[in-house]
Amino acid sequence: LTLTLVIAESSIELVPNEIAGHSSVRAQAIRKRKDPRKLILDQSYHHAAILKLGSSGAGRGRPDIAHFSLLTALGSPLNQEKRLQCFIHTFDNHVVTVDTSARLPRNTDRFTSLLEQLYEEKVVPDRGRPLMSLKKQTLQGLLRQLSADLAVALTVNGSPKEMSAVAGELVEAENPVLLVGGFPTGHFSMDTVKLSTRQYRIDRRPLEAWSVVGRAIYDYEKSVGLDRF
Amino acid sequence: LTLTLVIAESSIELVPNEIAGHSSVRAQAIRKRKDPRKLILDQSYHHAAILKLGSSGAGRGRPDIAHFSLLTALGSPLNQEKRLQCFIHTFDNHVVTVDTSARLPRNTDRFTSLLEQLYEEKVVPDRGRPLMSLKKQTLQGLLRQLSADLAVALTVNGSPKEMSAVAGELVEAENPVLLVGGFPTGHFSMDTVKLSTRQYRIDRRPLEAWSVVGRAIYDYEKSVGLDRF
Repeated sequence: LTLTLVIAESSIELVPNEIAGHSSVRAQAIRKRKDPRKLILDQSYHHAAILKLGSSGAGRGRPDIAHFSLLTALGSPLNQEKRLQCFIHTFDNHVVTVDTSARLPRNTDRFTSLLEQLYEEKVVPDRGRPLMSLKKQTLQGLLRQLSADLAVALTVNGSPKEMSAVAGELVEAENPVLLVGGFPTGHFSMDTVKLSTRQYRIDRRPLEAWSVVGRAIYDYEKSVGLDRF
Repeated sequence: LTLTLVIAESSIELVPNEIAGHSSVRAQAIRKRKDPRKLILDQSYHHAAILKLGSSGAGRGRPDIAHFSLLTALGSPLNQEKRLQCFIHTFDNHVVTVDTSARLPRNTDRFTSLLEQLYEEKVVPDRGRPLMSLKKQTLQGLLRQLSADLAVALTVNGSPKEMSAVAGELVEAENPVLLVGGFPTGHFSMDTVKLSTRQYRIDRRPLEAWSVVGRAIYDYEKSVGLDRF
């Protein structure tokens, strides 16, 4: 019994062309000795450039969200027991496959640099066992590849249900997939909602992605009895 | 009813004198235009210098642990409902008081820079409502200040107990304090153990600090019925 976690529509992308010439992007490109178009868009450094994107820039450039969510997932007992697999689906329709034994960098900037390497070379590290790999893929393609018989989307627009009850449903499925949004605020696109089997809201209050990941995995562990001593 | 969370013995300190001259520290000091002794020790940048400390360097220079733990705690429904207070107690016996409405930087390096400012100016930001403040204080001093009638230490050396049961005990206390270790591996010092009322281990496997924080707060919320819709 394995749970598949997909951090979906994650706020990860390369710097878009229209702001590649912005001073905040150019300054970082010089510092990192990289082509501006090979940088991962990052609110921490490209805030002013993202503002130039107007309303379409909202919520973009937050690779830290997928990073913290992954750290939470990979450190869980469920993962330690090899019963979790993790994918990051990005805003620009790439899918990152994460080896569950990967020791990710703990530093946000190091993780972002790793993503930059991943966009360029499709696999990291460049030799030995791949810890992360990237391909162009839609969420639909990924779900098909996973033969998911249940895809539960956790979203503020879903019907209210305690996570422990949602976990009970996941345990019943053959190939359960859990979709958590890798963006700061708002909700999944209609496309993602249509791809999911059910949509639930697990708290009255909006929660950060990594909190949702932590709670979902913990309740799933309890459902399968992994919390026993 | 408020829960007090103390990230104790956190792996946070200024660069110690004996390695302030190391090339990895000097390089970062030049980059940040700071006195090397005013930098926070950081494995991501001072790895080679920390190795020079020999066995006493083990587990030091990990401000990211307190950072992720705080992000997890501050994003919780318990905190949103103003029923959580957070402190960081450091390895070098400082205590950081964190305003529960603080929006911390999401980027590890930005958080570390904020800590550097905090060590220098004792409060951040430099004007307006303080989001974090720092003083020289031992864990004993902090627990006395909090009038804690129950201080539960979560540690691999404690007696096995499911976190939901631990949460049930915390709810019974007047001023419950939860101690979570802000270090990468190992366990609390004997001093800390003696200051705590009870010591529990909440999983068979060792867990990362931010996982412990997330699970503890979630179970505490369930104990006080905060998960109801």
